[in-house]
Amino acid sequence: MSDQPTAAVLVIGDEILSGRTQDTNTNYIARMLSTLGIDLKEARVVGDVEDEIVAALNALRTRYTYVFTTGGIGPTHDDITADAVAKAFGVGIDYHPEVLAMLGARYKPGEFNDMRKRMARIPLGAELVRNSASIAPGIHIGNVYVMAGVPAIMRAMMEDIMPTLRHGQLVHTATVEARIAEGRIAEGLMKIQQDFPALSLGSYPYYREDGFGVQLVARGRDAADVETAARAIEAMVKDLGAEPIRMNS
Amino acid sequence: MSDQPTAAVLVIGDEILSGRTQDTNTNYIARMLSTLGIDLKEARVVGDVEDEIVAALNALRTRYTYVFTTGGIGPTHDDITADAVAKAFGVGIDYHPEVLAMLGARYKPGEFNDMRKRMARIPLGAELVRNSASIAPGIHIGNVYVMAGVPAIMRAMMEDIMPTLRHGQLVHTATVEARIAEGRIAEGLMKIQQDFPALSLGSYPYYREDGFGVQLVARGRDAADVETAARAIEAMVKDLGAEPIRMNS
Repeated sequence: MSDQPTAAVLVIGDEILSGRTQDTNTNYIARMLSTLGIDLKEARVVGDVEDEIVAALNALRTRYTYVFTTGGIGPTHDDITADAVAKAFGVGIDYHPEVLAMLGARYKPGEFNDMRKRMARIPLGAELVRNSASIAPGIHIGNVYVMAGVPAIMRAMMEDIMPTLRHGQLVHTATVEARIAEGRIAEGLMKIQQDFPALSLGSYPYYREDGFGVQLVARGRDAADVETAARAIEAMVKDLGAEPIRMNS
Repeated sequence: MSDQPTAAVLVIGDEILSGRTQDTNTNYIARMLSTLGIDLKEARVVGDVEDEIVAALNALRTRYTYVFTTGGIGPTHDDITADAVAKAFGVGIDYHPEVLAMLGARYKPGEFNDMRKRMARIPLGAELVRNSASIAPGIHIGNVYVMAGVPAIMRAMMEDIMPTLRHGQLVHTATVEARIAEGRIAEGLMKIQQDFPALSLGSYPYYREDGFGVQLVARGRDAADVETAARAIEAMVKDLGAEPIRMNS
């Protein structure tokens, strides 16, 4: 498994930590990476504080194949991600001539002010992440991809980035739902886990207006093993007198 | 500000990192803590891997006043948070007589199986987090609060925990929305930030079907300063020919 590419997400922004904004970017990136067989191993959220961004970025980039950051690359004073990234990599940062030209062409005369020019500040040696949603690019340096926080722009940047990433072996998933208490399937599930040590079996109880139940998820890189484990889960649920329902997953 | 209590959230669960489940617990905890004047400084997500949980927990609990974990305290084999917490604190873990009794009373004869008994395993020296949603308790040890991942249960646990937390000075917020490009207000906003160094001014652009705009947020512990800064933001927006709208925030 050690040749499987891994990843971390670093969400940057006071608005996430204050509770003002619900982060959805991590979930989107997780789902996109899973389509490439890349394992998201960790996610962090830090505020708009340079030292915090630098420390988190250095902890993550030395540990995982890829790091994806979101947030802090706009024109305002609280957009400090590009500078923090340069600092983390120990490189300078300057106005990128091509980005200056692209942005300059977008604005009417007199509207390309100094703050907007901040979006052209790119760490030295970095590449641009072009995208269909904004003229201002994301940044690619080393194994780090720096993206916008606005979900629509982040998604456009992921579109640009994904074809360049190294693929891993896909993870296959099977989900069995049953109207049964988690505590009743726990022993059987553990035994199936022991039979399939290479799989990850998860148990996710739910409590809804129409009753409670559990979703049992088998995940792994061997599709046949996943299917065999899912059938074992179905048989176990039936043995306990409940009706297993295979979900699309 | 150094006497203000701080906090971190540690979300534990493969289902968050696989993208299967959108985490909403962090946002809820953030909003609850803000009502107590406690600053959420960092959030992390790790998978169901003991070493990862232990490392993250030790990094966070030594750094912040409080750490809140969610996930991994159910009856199944993938629920390993209690053991990881004990390991992080270097203490043993054992069946807690009171929890065994509470759980035992909940189940019919013969249904209180070994897996369900796992929910009574509590690190030595820890206190119980009772709650209205589940008999199985959360765990309080040192400055760490261990909660369920199921949102309804986590919320019930937060209800139990919140009255016990040290309050900080409340953060006041004012939000001004305007149909104007972020790049046009950036310079004025920076100047207002310089006039109010104790405040945090954030700029959050949005792109909706009915047009684009920006929300400008002033946050800080001095209500009068926040209000004065919000008025300065409104005046700045008006000077640029747009209409500021004060939002409830």
